[in-house]
Amino acid sequence: MCGIFGIHGHPDAVYLTELGLYSLQHRGQESAGIVSIDAAGNATAARRMGNVSDGMARELETLGGINAVGHTRYSTAGSSTIENAQPVLVRSRGGAITLAHNGNLVNASEVRHDLEEQGSIFATSNDSEVIVHLLAKSSADGPEHRVAEALRAAEGAFSLVIGLGTTMLAVRDPRGWRPLVMGRLGSATVFASETCALDIIGATVVRDVEPGEIVAVDETGVRSIHPFDAMERRQCVFEYVYFARPDSRVFGGSVDRARRALGRRLAAEHPAPGAELVFSVPDSSNSAALGFAEASRLPYELALIRNHYVGRTFIQPTQAGRDAKVKVKYNAVREILAGKSVVMVDDSIVRGTTTRGLVAMVRAAGARAVHMRVSSPPVTGPCYYGIDTPSREELIAARLTESEIAAHLGVDSLGYLSLDGMLNAVPDGPGGFCHACFSGDYPTAPPTDPDKLRFGCGC
Amino acid sequence: MCGIFGIHGHPDAVYLTELGLYSLQHRGQESAGIVSIDAAGNATAARRMGNVSDGMARELETLGGINAVGHTRYSTAGSSTIENAQPVLVRSRGGAITLAHNGNLVNASEVRHDLEEQGSIFATSNDSEVIVHLLAKSSADGPEHRVAEALRAAEGAFSLVIGLGTTMLAVRDPRGWRPLVMGRLGSATVFASETCALDIIGATVVRDVEPGEIVAVDETGVRSIHPFDAMERRQCVFEYVYFARPDSRVFGGSVDRARRALGRRLAAEHPAPGAELVFSVPDSSNSAALGFAEASRLPYELALIRNHYVGRTFIQPTQAGRDAKVKVKYNAVREILAGKSVVMVDDSIVRGTTTRGLVAMVRAAGARAVHMRVSSPPVTGPCYYGIDTPSREELIAARLTESEIAAHLGVDSLGYLSLDGMLNAVPDGPGGFCHACFSGDYPTAPPTDPDKLRFGCGC
Amino acid sequence: MCGIFGIHGHPDAVYLTELGLYSLQHRGQESAGIVSIDAAGNATAARRMGNVSDGMARELETLGGINAVGHTRYSTAGSSTIENAQPVLVRSRGGAITLAHNGNLVNASEVRHDLEEQGSIFATSNDSEVIVHLLAKSSADGPEHRVAEALRAAEGAFSLVIGLGTTMLAVRDPRGWRPLVMGRLGSATVFASETCALDIIGATVVRDVEPGEIVAVDETGVRSIHPFDAMERRQCVFEYVYFARPDSRVFGGSVDRARRALGRRLAAEHPAPGAELVFSVPDSSNSAALGFAEASRLPYELALIRNHYVGRTFIQPTQAGRDAKVKVKYNAVREILAGKSVVMVDDSIVRGTTTRGLVAMVRAAGARAVHMRVSSPPVTGPCYYGIDTPSREELIAARLTESEIAAHLGVDSLGYLSLDGMLNAVPDGPGGFCHACFSGDYPTAPPTDPDKLRFGCGC
Amino acid sequence: MCGIFGIHGHPDAVYLTELGLYSLQHRGQESAGIVSIDAAGNATAARRMGNVSDGMARELETLGGINAVGHTRYSTAGSSTIENAQPVLVRSRGGAITLAHNGNLVNASEVRHDLEEQGSIFATSNDSEVIVHLLAKSSADGPEHRVAEALRAAEGAFSLVIGLGTTMLAVRDPRGWRPLVMGRLGSATVFASETCALDIIGATVVRDVEPGEIVAVDETGVRSIHPFDAMERRQCVFEYVYFARPDSRVFGGSVDRARRALGRRLAAEHPAPGAELVFSVPDSSNSAALGFAEASRLPYELALIRNHYVGRTFIQPTQAGRDAKVKVKYNAVREILAGKSVVMVDDSIVRGTTTRGLVAMVRAAGARAVHMRVSSPPVTGPCYYGIDTPSREELIAARLTESEIAAHLGVDSLGYLSLDGMLNAVPDGPGGFCHACFSGDYPTAPPTDPDKLRFGCGC
Repeated sequence: MCGIFGIHGHPDAVYLTELGLYSLQHRGQESAGIVSIDAAGNATAARRMGNVSDGMARELETLGGINAVGHTRYSTAGSSTIENAQPVLVRSRGGAITLAHNGNLVNASEVRHDLEEQGSIFATSNDSEVIVHLLAKSSADGPEHRVAEALRAAEGAFSLVIGLGTTMLAVRDPRGWRPLVMGRLGSATVFASETCALDIIGATVVRDVEPGEIVAVDETGVRSIHPFDAMERRQCVFEYVYFARPDSRVFGGSVDRARRALGRRLAAEHPAPGAELVFSVPDSSNSAALGFAEASRLPYELALIRNHYVGRTFIQPTQAGRDAKVKVKYNAVREILAGKSVVMVDDSIVRGTTTRGLVAMVRAAGARAVHMRVSSPPVTGPCYYGIDTPSREELIAARLTESEIAAHLGVDSLGYLSLDGMLNAVPDGPGGFCHACFSGDYPTAPPTDPDKLRFGCGC
Repeated sequence: MCGIFGIHGHPDAVYLTELGLYSLQHRGQESAGIVSIDAAGNATAARRMGNVSDGMARELETLGGINAVGHTRYSTAGSSTIENAQPVLVRSRGGAITLAHNGNLVNASEVRHDLEEQGSIFATSNDSEVIVHLLAKSSADGPEHRVAEALRAAEGAFSLVIGLGTTMLAVRDPRGWRPLVMGRLGSATVFASETCALDIIGATVVRDVEPGEIVAVDETGVRSIHPFDAMERRQCVFEYVYFARPDSRVFGGSVDRARRALGRRLAAEHPAPGAELVFSVPDSSNSAALGFAEASRLPYELALIRNHYVGRTFIQPTQAGRDAKVKVKYNAVREILAGKSVVMVDDSIVRGTTTRGLVAMVRAAGARAVHMRVSSPPVTGPCYYGIDTPSREELIAARLTESEIAAHLGVDSLGYLSLDGMLNAVPDGPGGFCHACFSGDYPTAPPTDPDKLRFGCGC
Repeated sequence: MCGIFGIHGHPDAVYLTELGLYSLQHRGQESAGIVSIDAAGNATAARRMGNVSDGMARELETLGGINAVGHTRYSTAGSSTIENAQPVLVRSRGGAITLAHNGNLVNASEVRHDLEEQGSIFATSNDSEVIVHLLAKSSADGPEHRVAEALRAAEGAFSLVIGLGTTMLAVRDPRGWRPLVMGRLGSATVFASETCALDIIGATVVRDVEPGEIVAVDETGVRSIHPFDAMERRQCVFEYVYFARPDSRVFGGSVDRARRALGRRLAAEHPAPGAELVFSVPDSSNSAALGFAEASRLPYELALIRNHYVGRTFIQPTQAGRDAKVKVKYNAVREILAGKSVVMVDDSIVRGTTTRGLVAMVRAAGARAVHMRVSSPPVTGPCYYGIDTPSREELIAARLTESEIAAHLGVDSLGYLSLDGMLNAVPDGPGGFCHACFSGDYPTAPPTDPDKLRFGCGC
Repeated sequence: MCGIFGIHGHPDAVYLTELGLYSLQHRGQESAGIVSIDAAGNATAARRMGNVSDGMARELETLGGINAVGHTRYSTAGSSTIENAQPVLVRSRGGAITLAHNGNLVNASEVRHDLEEQGSIFATSNDSEVIVHLLAKSSADGPEHRVAEALRAAEGAFSLVIGLGTTMLAVRDPRGWRPLVMGRLGSATVFASETCALDIIGATVVRDVEPGEIVAVDETGVRSIHPFDAMERRQCVFEYVYFARPDSRVFGGSVDRARRALGRRLAAEHPAPGAELVFSVPDSSNSAALGFAEASRLPYELALIRNHYVGRTFIQPTQAGRDAKVKVKYNAVREILAGKSVVMVDDSIVRGTTTRGLVAMVRAAGARAVHMRVSSPPVTGPCYYGIDTPSREELIAARLTESEIAAHLGVDSLGYLSLDGMLNAVPDGPGGFCHACFSGDYPTAPPTDPDKLRFGCGC
């Protein structure tokens, strides 16, 4: 997954972008980058491995940037290198092209193959570089039409912030997989993956960039086109379930409210008779657990403590790193758990490794019974649209039945929220969402070369 | 503040110490260190600025350490250098001396002056170095008696883990200011500031090191002496209020349970009529806020979201750093707050800067009324015993009345927990606690040279 | 200037390349890089700013490389970034393309413009990237014919080592500006800018790659084509004068012997009557000074001592850095100079800054008279073919007459070797050399955009 | 070996010290440090591993230092750590003590043992720390008398620059083993190991600090005492043979002139009939080879070329590092050597490893006969006085006869300069020199614990 940010027309563009990236850090911790663009369209990049840090903006501060594009990225296995850090910045016929991408093209291999046949060269394994090539080749008049022409062949998920000279463009694919919001700070226009990045710089939310829309901003103002064939919306429901920050709005809805509703619905579908208290796997499940507690009239407790000095399990690139980090990351509070029948709420179960460790920890702290409740359905398939889920073989729910999973985790009972329950709980549901990883209902054909995809994905 | 850790008699001593330090990271993020001690008493140190990291143990892994001592430290202004990182390691007559210190000597300047008059030299501005000199000069027989003789002149707060050759010693000053717990892992003996560091390595809690006790561990086993004159206990109540991790036990009580009780008591002393919901300033106030919500039968909400990719405000060394970080650290959830009368619970107010910023943020998110509740009394004086509180002039409650503070913070009402309320809520109260920073009742004369102290403190 | 290296068919390819680059370090100290290519044609790069260092090969050692390409580079002002470090490595239709370039295309801007018009994108400001694009677009059959087709449009100086899949190619432009030699180590084939890089790995010299030749090596052996229109040789005489290492052979001749002959010729053209001793500006002028001493039957002395811990003046990117480094770099030996009339021999005078400082230093050490002798003619014009000379305005001999230069330097007499003298002294002269920077006789039209060239040059 | 530097009374003290250290870099490349001392006697240190670099002074530039002390150090095996980097800086009764030491105490273990018995602690394995303890304990009146009292017990080699508050002191042991010179820059006083460090900052030489002298400089001026019992001078002849820079004066004589004389004498003692040319092992043997060529009327040639981008063999800490570096460091010039009978001059042979490799390289380049000439006698014993010679077992001349050495090296003839020849060639000889490593005539008893000494030496 990735976070993207852009600001057009502000003298502090690079510093505001750095602040915005701090807010989008949860969307990618492997590398971060900022491109500063001055009034003449000259662009300069600062990128680094790891988290956003102060030095990044400082490196660019003397360049007079009034537009800036930023990106936070997390890796897929094997491609964790500085070459793959974004934003991409290249020189082309029309001047500098800057691009920050959240999402994944499912036909990247094919398009890349075609481009290579025409003699194009690629410096990275990113599918984002494919888009940049298409942009450079497009000969349409006007930046937004160049972008439209370039993306005609692109199939899959793409929320983009693009700099073409001094014009800044924001794009969402026709299905709207990934979020992208537009804001305003004084006379400057801002784009960001989530509204929390507008909050941190004091910008106000204007509206979502719409699925299939290309917004262009230059000195003459903001304009917009909808050049793509209309398609059914397929916004990623997992943004509500897990990925986005609870203080954000995405797809027009509040993430916190969505999770509370998921938790209440979960309590209705899978009550836990005899349970004495509810707790969450912090912090992504806090809202859902609170919703469960509220609906089931059980006390909400802080039974698991998270060590804040270690990163987020889901986004560690290798299994080895993941296991070691889990051990360091949580601890159970014996005084709360000892002798109790408890409900543990998590937002999702992917491999099951972390959950199994947590259940053991909770039992070791004295819990008498552990009822596992999950505020989303079983994850049974990989995501081809930008979330770095593991391959199908590693997904516990693709291999085991629910009762086998319960046995594997060592819980007394296990309840997953139903697909219908989930889709009815989130804002603007039940239609318009992509739930392929839960339902197998993929909106596109799978990529012909899923392995390459996983190594080549732009986010 | 600092975290200390020691393990005696385990082939993985350095790795277990690294794990232990991860759990004590909240007690100090400025520097970290491990000393590995082999079966012959040879000791080698690895220290670095910043957080604990894997490389630290790896640097020592080939040395055959079976004992290890670890330390996490946070700085006082001006002395944030690698020279001050602990554990201290020196060679002396009796072999290597290793020392990890949590606390502060109030007579360090005097003792240091005496030592300098005798021709001693000092490489750091740490008061911990004073203790090491005293240890090297002590000529008593037996490690624990050497430690006892060395510490006879020391006045103030000291929890210590010491390596003298292959003997490991753990000490608490007679008033017991700082916590120190003893555990067991197989046949190995473990010491740590908090029980969470035992949990992470799978060790079991044996008991607290007692105030005034010196515990010595060597190949013959564990023995203990109580060489100091008996004094009234003065355990730091701020460990319960703010400093320790909620999953720890300190001074024999559960931190989480203590904070819940503080929150309930706060609700009883300062109800908030008309309020519609309660939320905490995450994460240190979560338990207290939950206690407040429980006692006042108001819903507990997650109205402030914390960015996990930034450190802990309280322990940033400079004001400039502190302000910038606050802005990056929290965001309010409009969907929860808009139009509501709310209770915001925090564990303490020191300078008031962060609180004031949060209140403004909560109002900007639409809160109709903000009732501030604090689960401890006003902080009116500096701590001389190991917590890096600012000077009296910077403490908002030393300068302003409660109503002036309320006005400064911009809240509709403000309620601090009373001193009696706090002392009756925490485990084993009301006697036996140091509450000098709240009450002005300092158990010792203030240090003659408090400035030097602040620069010279060992933690 | 740059150094290039390639080895085909050796299990220690990356380590041998690292060794080779140590020997070519004098050709570029700003960045260094190695690309490892395995038996399947997979290529991986390690590049870094600054000098070659052990870690570079170690980074690649597990990749099973049997071919490797290496590069040392020095910067032109403004483009000292890791993006410009070579070898270039891209993916294209035909697999990985690796390229190490020494030289400069004079029509890079035009070709780049054409490529951009066709929609190509550029990640760097290197003219080497232009060649890579041409390579990717070439559709000829067989690697050497692809290279030939690609370079048809290239005008200027290029010695190249190229990896196309598992084929390695070595190319020199038809005029042969930059050196490139072929060697053999067991069954492996080696290419390098100078023979000293063959010596260090124990390889034997086979022959020069000829001007206009493309040599291709694969598992079937070595083959060669001469696809370009024949042109008059224009080998860079400055390689003999200054740039190459004295223990190397370039263009088939010994650099040491060439410099000795230049020194002898200089003594014949510009004797220094009354002088008592000769010394060099170490180390590049040592051979010439020895030749001068020999021919003039004067003692050769070590009157200037160079601090070996500082780099080579000529290749520091900025003037500020250059002045500071000069001061640190040389010292005069008073015991040799005091009261003497002396001859100071240098290989060339570019800006005059260093020389002027040295003359002052020599006088301060007591020299009675200073006779400056230069073993090449006045440098009056920039090099467009790969040597980073400054712009014409900065060249002292482009602004001042010889007597003005003598006055500016503060010498008693000044003698430059004549153009004819130089060309007759070097091996295989007087024809076949480029001496444009001395004579103004440029073999090509100057680049249309010389500024861009200086920023864009590949070496 | 180490280089030391001090400057008293200059507003640019730290920058001038950095410049001075650049000139003393050849005396130690393992670590470097500067201590800045302001007008109130406050002292701050910047130290780092590796070479001197710009950042070091910059780190101290805002501190208002008007005095500064600097040090370059090379390691003995096993103690290459930042803790051992100098100058030492400690706080004591009398304020800050700063110390930079070149030399070695032979009774460091005994004195240290005594100090430990009195309860002193040691942070490093440096014998320099012993001196600092003695300084702190001294209770004499006046800085120079404190220093005199402290050093009364010290036996061995010590050239020291010391800061006590705002007084700067320079000391040489009574035998005068290590050089130390005093200079003047405007009203500032400067001390340095060699005069080349005065040259670089534009200071003039005043005189040597005399053996047994303590010079003190403060705001009242320069004064001097000679408090030690008079002893026979034992200046290190190896400084002339190898260690010092040729542009320096040490012990009142020119290093370049000394080496020229050694070379001439060598030619007289060991002519090489039939030889056609002479060359040196660059750069330390250049002067001696020139002297040999001059006296034997043979041409001086540059037959070995040294790669300037690699450090100095003699001072690499481990054998592994040494061998790898030799291979990278030299190359032979075939055009000079092929078919010739040659004289190769080196200043000394220690282990023989490098020499043997060079002889093989010279033969491989075609030399018909190789006559090895060495401008000092066989090294048969370790140095206890500050030069990091290997243990006796590793010294080739301690194990083999001259004819065995010749066979081992593979030379046609081998001639070492005689002890008498060496002592009569250097300035102010033949008396007054330490030649223990050549003659076995050690001026002191060997250290009781030579191993500890080698690990513990201060330089």
